[in-house]
Amino acid sequence: MMRFLVFWLVMFIMACNPQSNETLDREEEEAHIIKKSDPPVAIVIHGGAGTILKEHLSDSLEKRYLFVLDSIISAGHQALEEGEEAVNVVIKVISAMEDSPLFNAGKGAVFTNDGINELDASIMKGKDRSAGAVARVKSIKNPIQLAHVVMERSNHVFLSGDGAEQFAKSQGIEKIDPAYFFVQSRYDALLRSKEKSSVSSVTLSEDEKFGTVGCVALDKNGDIVAGTSTGGMTNKRFGRIGDSPIIGAGTYADNQIGGVSATGWGEFFIRNVVAYDILARMLYRNVDLEQAAREVIFNVLEPHGGDGGVVCLDKDGNVAMVFNTAGMYRAAIDGNGIKQVGIYEMD
Amino acid sequence: MMRFLVFWLVMFIMACNPQSNETLDREEEEAHIIKKSDPPVAIVIHGGAGTILKEHLSDSLEKRYLFVLDSIISAGHQALEEGEEAVNVVIKVISAMEDSPLFNAGKGAVFTNDGINELDASIMKGKDRSAGAVARVKSIKNPIQLAHVVMERSNHVFLSGDGAEQFAKSQGIEKIDPAYFFVQSRYDALLRSKEKSSVSSVTLSEDEKFGTVGCVALDKNGDIVAGTSTGGMTNKRFGRIGDSPIIGAGTYADNQIGGVSATGWGEFFIRNVVAYDILARMLYRNVDLEQAAREVIFNVLEPHGGDGGVVCLDKDGNVAMVFNTAGMYRAAIDGNGIKQVGIYEMD
Repeated sequence: MMRFLVFWLVMFIMACNPQSNETLDREEEEAHIIKKSDPPVAIVIHGGAGTILKEHLSDSLEKRYLFVLDSIISAGHQALEEGEEAVNVVIKVISAMEDSPLFNAGKGAVFTNDGINELDASIMKGKDRSAGAVARVKSIKNPIQLAHVVMERSNHVFLSGDGAEQFAKSQGIEKIDPAYFFVQSRYDALLRSKEKSSVSSVTLSEDEKFGTVGCVALDKNGDIVAGTSTGGMTNKRFGRIGDSPIIGAGTYADNQIGGVSATGWGEFFIRNVVAYDILARMLYRNVDLEQAAREVIFNVLEPHGGDGGVVCLDKDGNVAMVFNTAGMYRAAIDGNGIKQVGIYEMD
Repeated sequence: MMRFLVFWLVMFIMACNPQSNETLDREEEEAHIIKKSDPPVAIVIHGGAGTILKEHLSDSLEKRYLFVLDSIISAGHQALEEGEEAVNVVIKVISAMEDSPLFNAGKGAVFTNDGINELDASIMKGKDRSAGAVARVKSIKNPIQLAHVVMERSNHVFLSGDGAEQFAKSQGIEKIDPAYFFVQSRYDALLRSKEKSSVSSVTLSEDEKFGTVGCVALDKNGDIVAGTSTGGMTNKRFGRIGDSPIIGAGTYADNQIGGVSATGWGEFFIRNVVAYDILARMLYRNVDLEQAAREVIFNVLEPHGGDGGVVCLDKDGNVAMVFNTAGMYRAAIDGNGIKQVGIYEMD
């Protein structure tokens, strides 16, 4: 146990420290066998999808993303190998991504039109389809942890706004100063977005629309857990809620089938119940995970005008990472111990 | 057009006036043919499900419910027969139910723990899977109308709280004094619920948990629209959001399959993506509407511990009204012109 904690701490410090990434392999896509366990464990994560082009990322930033994705997926996988429960791994992995300013969740959250950060998250356990979600919280450092407490300690699935924060307080979860979430580059993005908005009301670029983190894990007990967390949409108004806290749209898990976490233009994911639809196709039509995910992204989401992606795994430890955008920050280690880490479009 | 408006006005006045129900047939379940059109039109509504037992309703209150359900379903059906679009019929039907103090939506909304009324609603068009939803609005007379405006005039699907009200203002939708929603019997229910809560924190009766209105309509163009509206859960806290505004859980429509509106213990409807799952079973497994609805309510929702019901119709005008509670306020006129109006458990 102590060994696990030390490992986790090292991973976390590394993930938060971009200076220590110089030794990273420069290949965008890595694929090598880590370890194959029986029963299989598997884990898959994303850090958002969008117009992520190689020419937009400096070499050092690209390395930083790859390093963080690699560190997190490796630590998460090792925890599963050591017998950690999927629910704990998903919470720790997403918390680490929330704590990184690289991703639009937690510390890296984008700003609303009012110049504040509003965070959404959800988590679901495939064992009993229990779920917890929060929307529009402003002073909770790790929304995924609050979503978990909603799942475990309330009669509700979905709490929002000040009410969700009151619930957090009632459960002894500390509030933090919302100033914690301030990241200059995110604030600059708000100012740019507002400048554009003065010309036209619908000029958000894809980069500004997208941004989410997510994780799905399968543990040695055969339990599948999925979670998603986001800082929402730059310059968002009117108390908009996207797909991340919506069970069925942004997150779903069922031990008999698999688990999904989505990222992208949330409205289209809600309208097409993307996360659940992937699993429904597997269950009712007996198609495999990769095919189900591709059908939903390319034959349903895309024709409706939606952009984004999903990471998912099935009960046998197969993983799929499917998106129709230029890129998606992603990593996986499947049930055969095959690791993949990537940013740009698949070949 | 004028004729339609006059008809609607008469229906509305009748629906709001319990004194004019003396001529109502006393049979609980009515089934007679209204009219069969080609292409078929169909409509189905619910006014909530729960522990609705004959011994709990006075004769006059039972008649009042049956009269209102009958009036609304007949007016909605006539509008469809006259060529009105499904989206307009659903909005008018749900608005009429919101305006009635009989149902937990709009005027009849239950009170939150804070002694206020927070309203949720959603609407979805099966033609293009466009959708709009609002949660936790406090000064909008007809939340279903705001959900419709979100669908038609915003880039978003789901707006919440004060932000949703700001959006309403930006669209010229008038705010009303929240005192409009005050209904003594609902306030008394809050006081009773709080009294119980002081003894145990989980003592809400089913009657207090449930309460929603919904409508699904199929028009002459083959367009299917579904909508749902609720005043939430008596004594609710922490900004809880139930299934009514969740696309996939409380509401779904797809012209190629059918449409669903749900009512019941929202958390279980969210966790099991009830509305979409019914349609997914029809699409992917080719089961009929009634079977799909029964599978989801009795084989999925109930084993998970959930209670409630759904009203739904398919693209051919078949309707189904399925629930696992003692009763569900409901009415339908299917594609063959068969009318059903009921309150208690099906025989």
